[in-house]
Amino acid sequence: VRPIVAVDWGTSSLRGAWLDGHGEVRDERSFPRGILSVETDGFAGVFEDAFGDWTRDTGLALVSGMAGSRQGWVEAPYCSCPCGLAEMAASLAWAEPDRVAIVPGVACDREGTPDVMRGEETQVLGALDLLGLQDALLVLPGTHSKWVRAAAGRIEGFGTFMTGEVYGLLRRQSILARGMPDHEPALDEEAFARGLWQARHSASFLQSAFSARTLGLFGRLEPEALPSYLSGLAIGDELRAQGTTLAPEVVVVGDPQLVRRYAIALAAWGVRSVRSVGSEAAWRGLWKIAGAR
Amino acid sequence: VRPIVAVDWGTSSLRGAWLDGHGEVRDERSFPRGILSVETDGFAGVFEDAFGDWTRDTGLALVSGMAGSRQGWVEAPYCSCPCGLAEMAASLAWAEPDRVAIVPGVACDREGTPDVMRGEETQVLGALDLLGLQDALLVLPGTHSKWVRAAAGRIEGFGTFMTGEVYGLLRRQSILARGMPDHEPALDEEAFARGLWQARHSASFLQSAFSARTLGLFGRLEPEALPSYLSGLAIGDELRAQGTTLAPEVVVVGDPQLVRRYAIALAAWGVRSVRSVGSEAAWRGLWKIAGAR
Repeated sequence: VRPIVAVDWGTSSLRGAWLDGHGEVRDERSFPRGILSVETDGFAGVFEDAFGDWTRDTGLALVSGMAGSRQGWVEAPYCSCPCGLAEMAASLAWAEPDRVAIVPGVACDREGTPDVMRGEETQVLGALDLLGLQDALLVLPGTHSKWVRAAAGRIEGFGTFMTGEVYGLLRRQSILARGMPDHEPALDEEAFARGLWQARHSASFLQSAFSARTLGLFGRLEPEALPSYLSGLAIGDELRAQGTTLAPEVVVVGDPQLVRRYAIALAAWGVRSVRSVGSEAAWRGLWKIAGAR
Repeated sequence: VRPIVAVDWGTSSLRGAWLDGHGEVRDERSFPRGILSVETDGFAGVFEDAFGDWTRDTGLALVSGMAGSRQGWVEAPYCSCPCGLAEMAASLAWAEPDRVAIVPGVACDREGTPDVMRGEETQVLGALDLLGLQDALLVLPGTHSKWVRAAAGRIEGFGTFMTGEVYGLLRRQSILARGMPDHEPALDEEAFARGLWQARHSASFLQSAFSARTLGLFGRLEPEALPSYLSGLAIGDELRAQGTTLAPEVVVVGDPQLVRRYAIALAAWGVRSVRSVGSEAAWRGLWKIAGAR
């Protein structure tokens, strides 16, 4: 098996790894060149500057993420759920013939309402392989959190929550910001847990969010504690919304800071087992898709 | 009975009415001088410029709204629920002796979580009087919507939803804004109703909100329709959260544009009777509080 260059090209960052013939990471690079920073006709040049030297050795580069969106390098149509390695490998969009291929995003449909992801599908397939799982409930926290059901090694369906983005807007630009410090304090686990509890006993985040104002107003939470409390409200609302579909085991795919918050939250909801995977999920996913061609 | 000057001094506007000895509005004025535009020691001067001539005739001015907050003219402590005309009249905060009194806000407590309002309590008491009601479920839509339960003519409890503020942030500053026109299109009733339906079948606004992105992405809703759709999602989430506490009759207090949206939404939820009251609710409330002294 030949080595490949694995690339995760998202909205705000560009990361790549040199994977050897066993899929092991030999080198990594990252650049502040997310697709929003690239001109329409500038993708090939940015890619060449970042990974051109590597691809002369590997031959093949496989790219996941927003580089496959309409605003990206080459639009890669969505695969429809259920789909797995085989479907994704069969739907690659070639940005450069025989050299650079873009992995399709995945779309699903819930009673006529579409949902989409780009990049997370690759992480999901990588995480399943890394953990030796075929069936799982996974969460990929972030600006737009994805909750994904996998069965028989394929993505069955998923839902997107605008948790990170709404948190950021409320924390920085709403009336709630007035009671909070400008800097980002470390996680206050007690305040975070209180936010989780409140979310669990609230029917709507639009309502529970206002308690981040009143608890500050009445001096029941210090300004330093309020960002953690609001984070608990937002993540807790995601968990509340899972209802009875929340599984006894959940896989969290993300950076350690977010994984920690979700592990606390899932434990509060009685989830018995939380397993986590970090940035290696994307590399493993790309490796498996390359192997499925 | 003597005439009074009734004043509603909020975050972003200052409005007043000259009420005659029967509580009828004889004249109205409004100024772009919400409390956010007034220096800490500037309230008396702004008030004098706006209504000084009127108070020389009436003697008394009664002020409701954020002018009674910590950032306002004189802090008027909150009355605790349940409370009505008598409690509020007994807790006036005098900004100027015997001439200008500020109506207290109202606070309630839900299992240790406080909620507050300033200004809406006066509108609620006015609306009850205008409609001849003692018991009612009322909604006061806006930046921070208030759902209020009244019994025996008093405010029993209430809940705040950050509906208007979250809508504004998502519509203007989130990823959803990218799919929407810059101008504010007229209400698209079909798209609004679709948003209501989606909210009714979603467990969380954090999730349903993302459909305003995907429906645009897949061409199932035109850009011009997306703001109305998002508005339906947000208002629908408020109604969903009422659960079984939603009453067969609801009173909507607000401007005609918002009343119209809530009337459509409440009808979709099977509410049989929707009655509405506009800006006259504040004047009537202030008149009744003055009479209860």
